[in-house]
Amino acid sequence: MKVAVLGPEGTYTHEAADKYFEDAEFVFYSTIKEVFEAEEPVKFVPVENSMGGEVSETVDLLREQKAEVTGEYRMPIKHALISDSDLSEIEKIRSHPQALSQARDFIADKDWEKIQASSTAAAVENLNEREAAIASKISAKVYGKDILEESVQDQDTNKTRFFELDGEKRSEEKTALILEPQEDRPGLLHAMLSCFAGHQVNLSHIQSRPTRKELGDYYFYIEAEAGSEDLEPVIKCLETYAEVDLLGSFETLE
Amino acid sequence: MKVAVLGPEGTYTHEAADKYFEDAEFVFYSTIKEVFEAEEPVKFVPVENSMGGEVSETVDLLREQKAEVTGEYRMPIKHALISDSDLSEIEKIRSHPQALSQARDFIADKDWEKIQASSTAAAVENLNEREAAIASKISAKVYGKDILEESVQDQDTNKTRFFELDGEKRSEEKTALILEPQEDRPGLLHAMLSCFAGHQVNLSHIQSRPTRKELGDYYFYIEAEAGSEDLEPVIKCLETYAEVDLLGSFETLE
Repeated sequence: MKVAVLGPEGTYTHEAADKYFEDAEFVFYSTIKEVFEAEEPVKFVPVENSMGGEVSETVDLLREQKAEVTGEYRMPIKHALISDSDLSEIEKIRSHPQALSQARDFIADKDWEKIQASSTAAAVENLNEREAAIASKISAKVYGKDILEESVQDQDTNKTRFFELDGEKRSEEKTALILEPQEDRPGLLHAMLSCFAGHQVNLSHIQSRPTRKELGDYYFYIEAEAGSEDLEPVIKCLETYAEVDLLGSFETLE
Repeated sequence: MKVAVLGPEGTYTHEAADKYFEDAEFVFYSTIKEVFEAEEPVKFVPVENSMGGEVSETVDLLREQKAEVTGEYRMPIKHALISDSDLSEIEKIRSHPQALSQARDFIADKDWEKIQASSTAAAVENLNEREAAIASKISAKVYGKDILEESVQDQDTNKTRFFELDGEKRSEEKTALILEPQEDRPGLLHAMLSCFAGHQVNLSHIQSRPTRKELGDYYFYIEAEAGSEDLEPVIKCLETYAEVDLLGSFETLE
């Protein structure tokens, strides 16, 4: 099976896809929009990413394009220390600024010069002698380098979430949907959420996003902890307030 | 006045800061966290950025650190075509993948080879002969290049939003706050929003974010269209459901 994945090779999205799919051939694209428009039948994109935070772009594209969310994968970001040299020889540490900041405690007592890279994968690709990179384990494999140490991140690193699009649906644990109100008035969101509260459905994510039509014109992206059957009465209620776009019901893997 | 700004020089955050502050000396930092921790009295960070989408990191840092939001600036992203060569000589176009994708219509009928850069500013910094970059106008000034054409972005480019932190407060149009519920149950968000609805206060932004304490443990980031005085009864009501952290009341500039 061919899967379109946000690239380049060796990033955390690549690592997540590698863990999520059992037997797949990945085709890498450089923007999330290109992944959505790719010819491969299945797609894999970050939806909440501590390294890039591209959630907004993915959410906007889910609203604009016809893609069904068929799976969610949650992966903790575990940074590895990668090099061709021995640990004792390292003089410089190279990575994306956010990764350097997420491994601050680990780097603190080393006497290493920090070098900023455009991505964690690029840091590994451009390693020189006596340099180490902080990046995903899979990037070491992609660029033929050694892993000197695993899990060098500080404790407070985020989990990141990824969506499989247009794949094979398994069970329905959660449902992603978009609410597009036709007006803006105080209390409208409260009224819409009464549909979930009244049917005792919990939300695991809510986010307002500008529609780009006009400033102050918003739509809502919501993830509810229910499958499509349990949501039926909720949707009927929501439709009295807003246009409802169901993006898919899916299972969550960790 | 010294202002800590997310760098590097020549990015859209730099351009926004340059328009927002009348007379300031900018000190650039490479991560949003470093800006929050900077010694400069005033800070300037993106909160909703179509080029990077760092809103989550800024929101998390507003929750974790003591910084007061004192102003908001909304700026449309206008990409310029920047080069040392004449338009007729250009053979390659260099920029961040997202900027290339946001100027897709403009590039479509040119016969240019696309080169990806780590940021729009880096694209301008690393320009070779017969190359053009797509980047902010201010990057041309920073790196001493010419602007061949302004506003080359496609129509659907986002506005981006920036926050001034710990500056001088002007009027109070909006208030940013964080709600930290002590439990998770269906209908809790609905109950909390009843406090806004009951006092007829509109929300302009809402976002759920993981607390990082435990998976499924969320806090809510909210922007309300009211100053601190009008919000007083709302806050009293909210405090019956959650811990309330007021981040600041501020004016919005465009």
